[in-house]
Amino acid sequence: MSDKKIPYKIYLEESEMPKQWYNVRADMKKKPAPLLSPATKKPVTAEELSHVFCDELVKQELNNTDRYIDIPTEIREFYKMYRPSPLVRAYCLEKKLDTPAKIYYKFEGNNTSGSHKLNSAIAQAYYAKQQGLKGVTTETGAGQWGTALSMACSYFDLDCKVYMVKCSYEQKPFRREVMRTYGADVTPSPSTTTEVGRKILAEYPDTNGSLGCAISEAVESATSKEGYRYVLGSVLSQVLLHQSVIGMESKIAMDKYGITPDIIIGCAGGGSNLGGLISPFMGEKLRGEKDYRFIAVEPASCPSLTRGVYAYDYCDTGKVCPLQKMYTLGSGFMPSANHAGGLRYHGMSSVLSELYDEGLMEAVSVEQTAVFESAQKFARVEGILPAPESSHAIKIAIDEAMKCKETGEEKTILFGLTGTGYFDMYAYGAYNDGRMSDYIPTDEELKKSINTLPKID
Amino acid sequence: MSDKKIPYKIYLEESEMPKQWYNVRADMKKKPAPLLSPATKKPVTAEELSHVFCDELVKQELNNTDRYIDIPTEIREFYKMYRPSPLVRAYCLEKKLDTPAKIYYKFEGNNTSGSHKLNSAIAQAYYAKQQGLKGVTTETGAGQWGTALSMACSYFDLDCKVYMVKCSYEQKPFRREVMRTYGADVTPSPSTTTEVGRKILAEYPDTNGSLGCAISEAVESATSKEGYRYVLGSVLSQVLLHQSVIGMESKIAMDKYGITPDIIIGCAGGGSNLGGLISPFMGEKLRGEKDYRFIAVEPASCPSLTRGVYAYDYCDTGKVCPLQKMYTLGSGFMPSANHAGGLRYHGMSSVLSELYDEGLMEAVSVEQTAVFESAQKFARVEGILPAPESSHAIKIAIDEAMKCKETGEEKTILFGLTGTGYFDMYAYGAYNDGRMSDYIPTDEELKKSINTLPKID
Repeated sequence: MSDKKIPYKIYLEESEMPKQWYNVRADMKKKPAPLLSPATKKPVTAEELSHVFCDELVKQELNNTDRYIDIPTEIREFYKMYRPSPLVRAYCLEKKLDTPAKIYYKFEGNNTSGSHKLNSAIAQAYYAKQQGLKGVTTETGAGQWGTALSMACSYFDLDCKVYMVKCSYEQKPFRREVMRTYGADVTPSPSTTTEVGRKILAEYPDTNGSLGCAISEAVESATSKEGYRYVLGSVLSQVLLHQSVIGMESKIAMDKYGITPDIIIGCAGGGSNLGGLISPFMGEKLRGEKDYRFIAVEPASCPSLTRGVYAYDYCDTGKVCPLQKMYTLGSGFMPSANHAGGLRYHGMSSVLSELYDEGLMEAVSVEQTAVFESAQKFARVEGILPAPESSHAIKIAIDEAMKCKETGEEKTILFGLTGTGYFDMYAYGAYNDGRMSDYIPTDEELKKSINTLPKID
Repeated sequence: MSDKKIPYKIYLEESEMPKQWYNVRADMKKKPAPLLSPATKKPVTAEELSHVFCDELVKQELNNTDRYIDIPTEIREFYKMYRPSPLVRAYCLEKKLDTPAKIYYKFEGNNTSGSHKLNSAIAQAYYAKQQGLKGVTTETGAGQWGTALSMACSYFDLDCKVYMVKCSYEQKPFRREVMRTYGADVTPSPSTTTEVGRKILAEYPDTNGSLGCAISEAVESATSKEGYRYVLGSVLSQVLLHQSVIGMESKIAMDKYGITPDIIIGCAGGGSNLGGLISPFMGEKLRGEKDYRFIAVEPASCPSLTRGVYAYDYCDTGKVCPLQKMYTLGSGFMPSANHAGGLRYHGMSSVLSELYDEGLMEAVSVEQTAVFESAQKFARVEGILPAPESSHAIKIAIDEAMKCKETGEEKTILFGLTGTGYFDMYAYGAYNDGRMSDYIPTDEELKKSINTLPKID
């Protein structure tokens, strides 16, 4: 540890910002299993994928070998509008906890989308523009990804069509309005605008929608129109690649001040922020240069890593997307209605799934009342109202800091604070009123949805 | 102009942050008129004020002579959690407008309160804590000030009682929940918890409340309890003093890169952000060292500077606060129901009123549909969804930049972007749907409310 006084917030200079993304797959001895075509159940080809995704993104999705990929100048210019994000020393939280641990967080919430999602949205929009496309389609649940993509498309003057899970569309009118302000066309899903939407509505007329269903609609919408492609905000390896900018900036900032984290913690839904944060550090671990503890934190109500199986599964309800080998709860799994916030996807990034399966990363699950308790504690001393998703990481960071208090160890903890909770005030209200409850799915429930997994030879 | 390449965002180092607030009154040849006691109509004494405000804040309120006032260490430590705020070069907006003008904005929205209000909230909470008080009371309209004060009180473990204008309380449940998350007690105003509230309710049982009425309730609540004082988020000279940190940081950042603004623009409600932004620049103008154009931008629906009178008036509906000489529309003035966002106070900071009266500052008023048009344009290229209040400044900054396009002048424009619009999505929704309308009060209407001004000899 250097003797330099560490400021509350470390901002890199523009000249210090990463010029390349880091592709952790290049350093993995065992690569993530290939995506399979839903039709043939054979490894999907670049040609097949190019009907769904932009050409350059297909290349990135299939690229398991290049360690670094240049960030195009136009994307780096956009990054300069809201990046570098601050690496914050949580002095006030440390004092409140009276812990010898040194706590840092990389804060990705200082942009209008309110989360890290913009890092990949701008990249995906850029490649769509480069390919001469008219626009892109996507799904959004809580609305963070949809908002980020709307901003990115507005910047590059691309058409943006968002299928928003119906219950969110109704319960989060403000997110919807932010997207509309950025010019996006927002449709509640399931809708009558797609075949898969009509089919789901016929079968379940009262459904509130799900992420898996909205994905199917967005993919159908993209593939049935000239000049459109589908984009996704998490799970995919290309998204982890773009999000590596989080970890790269963190590492540059820490190196600059001679700080080495012992534990790196992130919340895990589809895995985009966690994967992005840990990537360059995991690279060092994979290359045998350094060792770190990595902890994925997931909700007890949607525990894909801690209670799922590692197998090929569908990524969407309509089964139109490629299949992916991942830790999964089954594509029919839906978290209980009392689950607030995001982190509700049934599967996990194939990269993170493989790293977890090899024992290179740990995972824990936490219940939401405890998560909001940590969120409130954090907000009151650190001044930032965290997103419920990020608060999963806060909860475990606090737990680890309290262990240090017991043992007297001065561990350095880094966690990802992926976003703000401004659009989650219904959930905060439920917590403030004591109306929030926890729900952990039973083994029987999980077995039922896991039993729907496809049989792959 | 130096040849240094200007980055998108200029962040000061912690060591470069201001250690003192700048008190513009010290450089004013003609000082703002003294506050008057509502009982005697004579200049209010420090002793009289000390029943309402903390002792140290009374001193600051009455201090017309000290040019610099030290920022206490504890406040500087808190500032480090969310400051320095970035000074942003609006490269993307310049490109979009195709203007030779160089546009900068000081962005105060990157904290959970979403605005600059936190700069004064933390100072006022600190002095209350130092005095050994139990807590503070205040009013809030749109909720930015209440949120900021809740955060500040939570940090110093002070009780915080907020009277929130009833229509905002009902229409902005999210702001209310943020305050509750920070531990504040939030009461819709008028309420039955105060004498003045009960009186107003008896007279107008269906009232939606007003800022002036909530102020009266908060003052009564503070002065009728042991260990409490009242705090206010704008208008007062002490608030402008604390907000001078905005202008100080801006000036240090600009000086560092050899930038001199030609025009400095801010939105004006009570005057806190505008006063804070312009203070150190105005100081140079007052001392004859440099010249700048200053432009206050106010809503056409609440035009205190452009259509009010410069006279003594009550600061609150209940007439319990000291009287202030200011540009005012009369304490009974209420902006029309279609007015969205803040900037709805009937009067203006006495410091700014005096500077405006002496011709040292200009003022313009703008209609809200044009304001939201500028807000949307800005959001789509600069990535930040601005608060409606700040968007008044954006509108005029764009107008001035377009004049440069006509004349070919490379003027440097600085404006204050005081906050984000995340909690203003009803208003954005109205704009997106084409449901937004404009209203300019008639001369008759203004005459009626101005006629309620007290007669002071």
